[in-house]
Amino acid sequence: MTNQAFVEGQVACIRESVGGALAINALSGGVDSAVVTVIGHRALGDRLKTIFVDNALMREGEPARVAQVFGGMGIPVQIVDARREFLDALRGLTDPEDKRNAVTSTFYKQVFGKIVRESGATHLLHGTILTDIEETVDGIKRQHNILEQLGIDPEKEYGYRVLEPLKTLRKDSVRAVARVVGLPADVSDRMPFPGPALATRIVGEVTAERLETVRRATAIVEEELAGTEAFQYMAVLLNDKATGIRGGRREFGQIVVVRCLHSVDARTATSVDLNWAVLHTICDRITAIPGVNRCLYDITPKPPATIEYV
Amino acid sequence: MTNQAFVEGQVACIRESVGGALAINALSGGVDSAVVTVIGHRALGDRLKTIFVDNALMREGEPARVAQVFGGMGIPVQIVDARREFLDALRGLTDPEDKRNAVTSTFYKQVFGKIVRESGATHLLHGTILTDIEETVDGIKRQHNILEQLGIDPEKEYGYRVLEPLKTLRKDSVRAVARVVGLPADVSDRMPFPGPALATRIVGEVTAERLETVRRATAIVEEELAGTEAFQYMAVLLNDKATGIRGGRREFGQIVVVRCLHSVDARTATSVDLNWAVLHTICDRITAIPGVNRCLYDITPKPPATIEYV
Repeated sequence: MTNQAFVEGQVACIRESVGGALAINALSGGVDSAVVTVIGHRALGDRLKTIFVDNALMREGEPARVAQVFGGMGIPVQIVDARREFLDALRGLTDPEDKRNAVTSTFYKQVFGKIVRESGATHLLHGTILTDIEETVDGIKRQHNILEQLGIDPEKEYGYRVLEPLKTLRKDSVRAVARVVGLPADVSDRMPFPGPALATRIVGEVTAERLETVRRATAIVEEELAGTEAFQYMAVLLNDKATGIRGGRREFGQIVVVRCLHSVDARTATSVDLNWAVLHTICDRITAIPGVNRCLYDITPKPPATIEYV
Repeated sequence: MTNQAFVEGQVACIRESVGGALAINALSGGVDSAVVTVIGHRALGDRLKTIFVDNALMREGEPARVAQVFGGMGIPVQIVDARREFLDALRGLTDPEDKRNAVTSTFYKQVFGKIVRESGATHLLHGTILTDIEETVDGIKRQHNILEQLGIDPEKEYGYRVLEPLKTLRKDSVRAVARVVGLPADVSDRMPFPGPALATRIVGEVTAERLETVRRATAIVEEELAGTEAFQYMAVLLNDKATGIRGGRREFGQIVVVRCLHSVDARTATSVDLNWAVLHTICDRITAIPGVNRCLYDITPKPPATIEYV
């Protein structure tokens, strides 16, 4: 099947499922939800409402970037500021599962769930891809967006039906479809970014201050590695601290990990042998962030590591 | 002054200070205390008693190696097993200063202090070097072996006088002196290893199990990097954990950091641009240690980081 035929098939399928009713979807800024948004609008037009939730866990400038890309394609996106709800839910949590669950639960039950109920939508379009399903089935990861895989009946629990147009595709196919539906290259080639966003890039408690630290480190890594052919690159803030020297005095500082991976579909991945000069530049810039005095490069493949830390 | 003249001067100085009395010194396995041992024995012969304390924090095979080197030079070394005392003192401690203080205090007040009192020695020979003094004065580090710099009067507190024959030298000069006094190359060129030993290579609590993990990682790093011209290389066990996959199942694993540095005298240092194939081999071997699923390479110079983490 060509990518064009895939898109037409999914457009038809969404039209048939939704009928004359309303649908809703959430846009995260990643390629999966972007493709779902375009296919959904092609199928339903104004009967699809697209929401972008600012969860305080986004990368620098993300809400503005999303509004610009979809505004340029004539697709309206409603931006919802829910930063306080997410930060409140994450306060005091350090266990990775608890943190992911807090983000999922705040999103579905509190923020997006409320919007869905008020919207009158009967269908939710979701950007689940095949790798998400495989990893959830394998018990490797609890994906935030595969409720059915977890034995949750979304219609009963949340009051709507979930459609997953991309659930037969892996990441490389999603990118090809993104190009076919006319998304700009900086979206179609945009590297994966997890649903719980920067909360998965912080080991230990997620606070506004620690988010600001990892957000700055993330911007540095993305800027310095933009020219690489890597599948994904990121910055992670650890909870551990280490000794250091600043201005001739001893200090106890934070540690940022840089990760840059080759992968086709995220099922397996290997660390990229980066240019050392680039790594030293990244280190210099990251250790200039207040409170950070160590920069480490993760050389572990997946497996035995995962791509994310949380 | 030539290195030979330096040695002769220190031999004379030790003889004059100790007079007809007895002296004692502790050998750690590093080049500093090894040089002090040889100079001290040259000055005092049988009137210097040399002690090697097994503090449970040593690298693999260290006590046997030390006995072999000094036995070969006709210098007797008494090995004291104090593993339980140190592990008891470290239990539950996570703060770097508390951990360093526990090791220092157990060594001086409990283990070595007792041996000194029973020995009848009036003088203690110590391997303090100039960098230790500078960093303690600058407040960067609390060195374990510079009691006087910290306002502690060792004669009053511990009952003996401290002699520091190497306190005017930096590490490169100590190595040159080591060659002059006939120490084998694997001692004279041996990289620096901190007094609190593997306790400085563990972020968080130091336990027998965690020591075994970092000891195995240290042996791997030392084996794989033996051919490099680096000043120092090491493995550090973090307290943080990260997600991973093992045998297709999700696991929450430990993180080991590899550090390899260029330096002349430990005052400043830069991360070595290692061969990537070597780094990947190290990573494969380290993530085969039970419970470890991440391997990171520290790219931070000193400053703003220090060489050690604790």
